[in-house]
Order: sequence, then structure tokens, then C-alpha cells
Amino acid sequence: MSGRYDTITFLSDYGLVDEFVGLVHSVVRSIAPDAAVVDLTHQIAPYDVRAGGLTLARSVQYLCPGVVLAVVDPGVGTGRRAIAVEVGHGASVLVGPDNGLLAPAVALCGGATRAVELTEPAYRLPAPGATFAGRDVFAPAAAWLCTGVELTALGPEVDPGGLVPGLLPVSHDEDGVLVAEVLWIDRYGNAQLNLDPEEITPYGDRVRLRFGAEVRTAVRAMSYEEVGPGQVGLVVDSYGLLSVVVDRRSAAGELGLDAGTLVSIEAFSDDEQEAPSGGVTTPVQLTTRKEAQP
Amino acid sequence: MSGRYDTITFLSDYGLVDEFVGLVHSVVRSIAPDAAVVDLTHQIAPYDVRAGGLTLARSVQYLCPGVVLAVVDPGVGTGRRAIAVEVGHGASVLVGPDNGLLAPAVALCGGATRAVELTEPAYRLPAPGATFAGRDVFAPAAAWLCTGVELTALGPEVDPGGLVPGLLPVSHDEDGVLVAEVLWIDRYGNAQLNLDPEEITPYGDRVRLRFGAEVRTAVRAMSYEEVGPGQVGLVVDSYGLLSVVVDRRSAAGELGLDAGTLVSIEAFSDDEQEAPSGGVTTPVQLTTRKEAQP
Amino acid sequence: MSGRYDTITFLSDYGLVDEFVGLVHSVVRSIAPDAAVVDLTHQIAPYDVRAGGLTLARSVQYLCPGVVLAVVDPGVGTGRRAIAVEVGHGASVLVGPDNGLLAPAVALCGGATRAVELTEPAYRLPAPGATFAGRDVFAPAAAWLCTGVELTALGPEVDPGGLVPGLLPVSHDEDGVLVAEVLWIDRYGNAQLNLDPEEITPYGDRVRLRFGAEVRTAVRAMSYEEVGPGQVGLVVDSYGLLSVVVDRRSAAGELGLDAGTLVSIEAFSDDEQEAPSGGVTTPVQLTTRKEAQP
Repeated sequence: MSGRYDTITFLSDYGLVDEFVGLVHSVVRSIAPDAAVVDLTHQIAPYDVRAGGLTLARSVQYLCPGVVLAVVDPGVGTGRRAIAVEVGHGASVLVGPDNGLLAPAVALCGGATRAVELTEPAYRLPAPGATFAGRDVFAPAAAWLCTGVELTALGPEVDPGGLVPGLLPVSHDEDGVLVAEVLWIDRYGNAQLNLDPEEITPYGDRVRLRFGAEVRTAVRAMSYEEVGPGQVGLVVDSYGLLSVVVDRRSAAGELGLDAGTLVSIEAFSDDEQEAPSGGVTTPVQLTTRKEAQP
Repeated sequence: MSGRYDTITFLSDYGLVDEFVGLVHSVVRSIAPDAAVVDLTHQIAPYDVRAGGLTLARSVQYLCPGVVLAVVDPGVGTGRRAIAVEVGHGASVLVGPDNGLLAPAVALCGGATRAVELTEPAYRLPAPGATFAGRDVFAPAAAWLCTGVELTALGPEVDPGGLVPGLLPVSHDEDGVLVAEVLWIDRYGNAQLNLDPEEITPYGDRVRLRFGAEVRTAVRAMSYEEVGPGQVGLVVDSYGLLSVVVDRRSAAGELGLDAGTLVSIEAFSDDEQEAPSGGVTTPVQLTTRKEAQP
Repeated sequence: MSGRYDTITFLSDYGLVDEFVGLVHSVVRSIAPDAAVVDLTHQIAPYDVRAGGLTLARSVQYLCPGVVLAVVDPGVGTGRRAIAVEVGHGASVLVGPDNGLLAPAVALCGGATRAVELTEPAYRLPAPGATFAGRDVFAPAAAWLCTGVELTALGPEVDPGGLVPGLLPVSHDEDGVLVAEVLWIDRYGNAQLNLDPEEITPYGDRVRLRFGAEVRTAVRAMSYEEVGPGQVGLVVDSYGLLSVVVDRRSAAGELGLDAGTLVSIEAFSDDEQEAPSGGVTTPVQLTTRKEAQP
């Protein structure tokens, strides 16, 4: 039997300075030499389960079918369960701690069809200490699945409905003001909001953003460059959500946004909407505000 | 048909914190599971097309024949073209934005033999937003080439002579002073100049360097260690160019050099040349100048 | 002949910003396209041979049999030898500079069974400068070994007893005080000591730590979480050594520990041991001491 899965997509908060990621690769290759490991990212902030879960959720539609190995695990060595969650009746299996990390991606895949707790000692490495479950528990489970080991061989089935849920912030309307939240600041300083583009259609092509004590005008645009120098834009990003951007500059740095910042969106009144002619003309004063940069 | 290319060498400014690089790997593996992806680097400074182009140029002679996928793309989502450039009559194909990024490497490979614009929708991913061309346009093109898809299937041929050129700074002589430029500061703080070793032969084994308001004496040496403690050296680096170095310390940090810094090189007069006996004896005062470090 | 080794585990101080790691991968793939390269880490601090050697030593029991390619090489281009060291009568070969980097791992593998100096020009790349031995000397040697080239074809045999030894700090007892040393600060700020768990058993479940001018109480615990908020713990880490930890915080940051810090461990007197009832009750004042953070 040549193995059911041939790709392991691997995300963690291990960073790339220590040898943690390399050891997981070594363990996988020792058990399943024909499996390919695709590193999604290992620079989730330490212990940031929410950021890890959001990253998986953003990525899941682009991942190869197979095994997803995800480790952001502040409770390692305590009572939290180690799990493998099957989706699509076997299309893929997500392996990681039962702390909500996997939940958003599982939901986007249509929900769990089965789940097991990873307790079978034959599919773990003997561990001198209980703190590196990625190497000793999760990587072996992912690798054994690629060799054709059945999901249910890894441990007893558990009720998928009893897994720790992921908590994703939802936007909401408060008296005509749309209250959203920054999900993610990317490398370029773009600030992804938890907003589908159609949610802001009623607010017009130019909106008022409020966050903290700041008030800014933002224009809807199709690309970063279209936003125009010095302007704040709302662009449909590559994941289909709205991002706050500044062309070729860090919106997060310029505006003082960070993951978790609440951003409210208001329409301009009709009078205000008339002002700009021929596109965007309202200049925005941007200060560098270095003290507020992430 | 088993595919024409089996290696994709991948360079970008995506960084390693977000999932961008991982998603490109996923997309490639979904389309061309037998292709290997070699990550050259993903930490080109955001939007730094020049640095990306120089990195490709330094690397190209060591790369596996196949596909080069290069993405430093500040104009993504605007009018800049997405291209694939064939060199060596099919020996390799470079895929990326038409903004000069690929040009130095293409020139070092003998120039383009063909080029196409990547417009064929069948070889792109459907994209919710137009900002992640690496995932949606360039990675699919690179991967399809590895499955045996013909270059010209990816889009219409374009005139290679009409591609955006790369701009590489050239050293020049000004009244006996050789004016060079720092191309690159590496991890160790070595400052690569745009100088072949023979260019400075007429200036002697010990030369005067000027940059900004600084004047330093540098000695030619065969290795970092040969430079001697506290000395500034000019060493033929591993790419065959001259680098300004300080043994086991950061020349860039010590001297305040950065990519783009102009460095002029002068000969000492005969009197000055006689001073050192038995090698290098002119001590150089190095201060740490932390405020000038990159 | 299909090659004797199929995995190259690669560690270096090259960092991930420059193209150094990518070029080594390219060179390996050009010579040995069927060999897999597992990146252990490339963020050993520049020139830190001790840290590189410790990382290899921690990792070696988890590595795939095959070739280990390790490059932390401050003496590149000087008289230090380039070597390949066979262990286990051919089970694996470690390739790198003869500067002590490989020695701890070699010792943990039972010592060298053979060693050669990498002098054979046919198995090197021609190099414009003598400063990138990873690309020009070590990577080709590792790759050729994977194609079935004999160890002794790479250069003349050298006496394994004459290789530069690795220096690992050893703990010792001074008048009832156990003097240990921090080997490694990991991403999470845990500070690994050069202590086996049984070494501190005589000192009790609660011990006094001294380092610099600081005195702290530490409790032995099985997991980070068990340590309790605000407490300093001594946990058996995933490598089987004792680490100084603070639950979900950086012990190194909180306490001002760094690699190389000496830490002495003392028992409390019987009177002191009686004080806590039902576990740990001695509060520890933790200040953030940002100025002391690594």
C-alpha cells in the first residue's frame, strides 16, 4: 500500500531560528520518506492561536489535499487533547492541538466528518520531556497517515461536536455604523478587515474610518496603486476581504493599526459625498506616528 | 509527456512571516506535483526591484536549469505586464513582472530568445482580488511550464526588446578616482562593490576609500582573516566582485555603508606607498558608529 | 548505482535574507537531483561555532541517516581544513569545517570511524573567491556522497583523533552548590541548562537559583503550565535537559539569562523547605527588566 496522502502542509509558531521546524521535517521523512512537506509559515507569533487559525482559514482553499499539520500550542504538556480531524470524508486530515487552532479551517472545509484523539503510543515518539508535541506526537501522526495508517489507528474517536471551537470576530452594524476588526497585518502593512466587499457597498465609494481616536477618509479602489499617493484605500485583497491599504507604504504603520484593532465605517452625508469631483480629491494628512507602529 | 522542466527556483519579497511563500508552493504542487521548488530567498526588501534583480544576477550561474519564478512587484494590479522570458532557446524560462526584475539575469543568460505575456486565463487561478499575482498568475505559469505546457500557450508573444530593462550601476573613472557603488550588504556586513578585481589593480595593494565624509585605508586581501584585526579590506568575494570587509565584523556597520552608497577609490602617492613594510601597517581607527549601522 | 545516501540535513549561519541557502540547495540539486535537503536551521548567529555545535548535538538523534552538512565557518579562506567525518561505519557522514562544529554530534554518534579532508578539485566548484565554501566545497561534497561517490574519493584520509574538538561546558559541584551554564535560549525564552534532571534531585523540589546578582526560587515541574503564574520553573525539556522556564513568558527576558550565563543551584535549608505547604507558595517578584533582555 503506497499511502493515502502525499502532502503535509505545516504551520507553526516555532519560528525559523531554532531547529524545531527542521526536526519535524526529519521526523516526517524518517517515517514517510515519500511525503512532501509544504511549509505554510512558522512565524505565527508565539502562542497566538487566533492568528494561526486565521492563517489556516485564509489558506485552506489553496492547499493541496492531504494532511495539515498545525502547531500553536501554549497548553502543551497539560490536559489539552492532541487530535486529528478528518474533513470531506477523508479528503484531508488536520492534525494539531484541540485548542481552536484547527476549527476555522475545518469549518471552511464543511466541518469534521470524524476526529480522533492522538493517544496511541505506537504512533508517537518516546519523549524525554512533554513539551515538544510537534516532534513527538503531531509530526508522527501526520507522517503515519501518509504511509496509509488508518485515522482510527491513531487513537479513539471523539465527538467532532465536542472539539474546542475557533472564535472568529464578526462585523456588525451599530446605528448605521459598520463595526469591523483588523484580522491581520501582512508584510506590506496592509490591514485585512473581517469584511466582505459587498458589506460596505451601501456606504459609498468614499467612507469614514474610525479607530481609536483617529478619523480617516478611505476610498474604495481596485489596486494599491489606484489608491493614489497619500490616500488611504479599501481594496479587495487577494483573499476576497477588504483591506485598509496605503500605496507602497504600510497602512498599519501609518495609521497605527494592529491585529484586533476595531475599525468602524461610516458613510459620508450627501453634502460630503459631492465634494470630490473626478475621483479622489480629499487629501489625507498622514503622519508617520512611529510610536504607534506595530 | 513528462514535463520539460523539473525545477522552479523561487525568489520574492514576500518574507517568511505571512503564508505567501507557502501558498505559492501549494499552488505549484497542485499543478505540477513532480516539480521541485528551490527557495532562493524571500526576504528581498518589500518592493526593492533593484535588490531582487541583483540577487538573481548573482545567483543565475549556480541555478538549476528550469524555471525561475521571481516576484517583486510593487505595480501588481496595475498596467505592468506579467511575463515569461525564455533564455538559451528553451534552456530556462524566467517568470515574473515586467518591471526590470528579470532583466539582469536574462542578460547574463545571453538575452531573451522569446517572451510571452501571461494573459491566458486557463493558466491562471481565478482571483478574488488582483493583488497576489504570485499565487494567481506567476506560480501557475511556472508550474504549467513544468508539466510540459508550451511557452506560447501562456499568452501572446511579445518583443523581448520591448521589455523593461534592468538598471545596473556601472563604475567609472573621474580624474584618476574610481567611483563605485555598494550593490549589496550581506548578512555578515560585507559590502559588495560593482568592481571586478582587475579594475583596481592600477591603484595598488593599499588604496584610499572615500564615502560620505569618511576616508579609510583599505588593503587588498585573499580572505577575511588575512585582512587583519581592525583593518578594512578589499576581498574578491564569492561572486568574483570586490567587497569591502572587516574580519569577523560587519564592514557595513563599522563604516556606515549601505546598498547604493557611492565609494570612490584612490591610489596613494608613491611616498605614501612606501610607508608600510612587510604588509599592512597603517592602523585604521574604527569606531562602532552604532548610529550609522544599517 | 543509485546513491548511498538520500538525505542531506543542512545547518548554517547563513541566515535567510541572502541567497546563500538557496544557492546551496541549487548546487546540491544540480549534482544529486534525487537527494532531499532538510533545513535544520540557518539562523545560527554569525560565526557562533558553539551554538551551531550545540544545535547539531541536540538534533542528531532525530535526524535521518545520511549526510549532515553544517557550515559555521569564521575561518573560511584560511588554513582551517574542510572535512567529511564518517560515523557508524558509514551510517552517516558529517561535512563541514574542522573547527569543532561537528565534534559534539560526532561524539554523540559514537565517534568518527573515518575522516577525509575535502581537497579533491574534481568534487569542488571552481570559485572566484575563497569565501563561500558552503557553495563551492561543502555542498558539492555532500551531494556527491549522495550520488554514490566514495568518502575517500573526496580527499586524503586524516586521523579522526586530530580533528578540532568541540568544547561543551560541564556542570560541577562547588561546596554543595551546583554550577551550571545556559546552553541555549529558545524562541519562547526557555533557558536550557547543561543539567540532567537527576543531577538536581538531591537539591529538592524547590531550589535557589543564582546568576549574576540575582537570586530566585525555582520549582521543579512537569510542564510549563504546572509552574504557575509568576513562578520560575525547572522543567525537563524536550531534549531531556533541565530548562529554566516561566509559563507563557520568556524566562530569558524576565530573568536576564543568555547563552553562556552561569547559573548556580542550591538547596534550601530544612527550615526553608518547610515553609511551603501544598505546593509552591513562595512568591517570586518578577520585573520585566527590559534592559537585560536578550
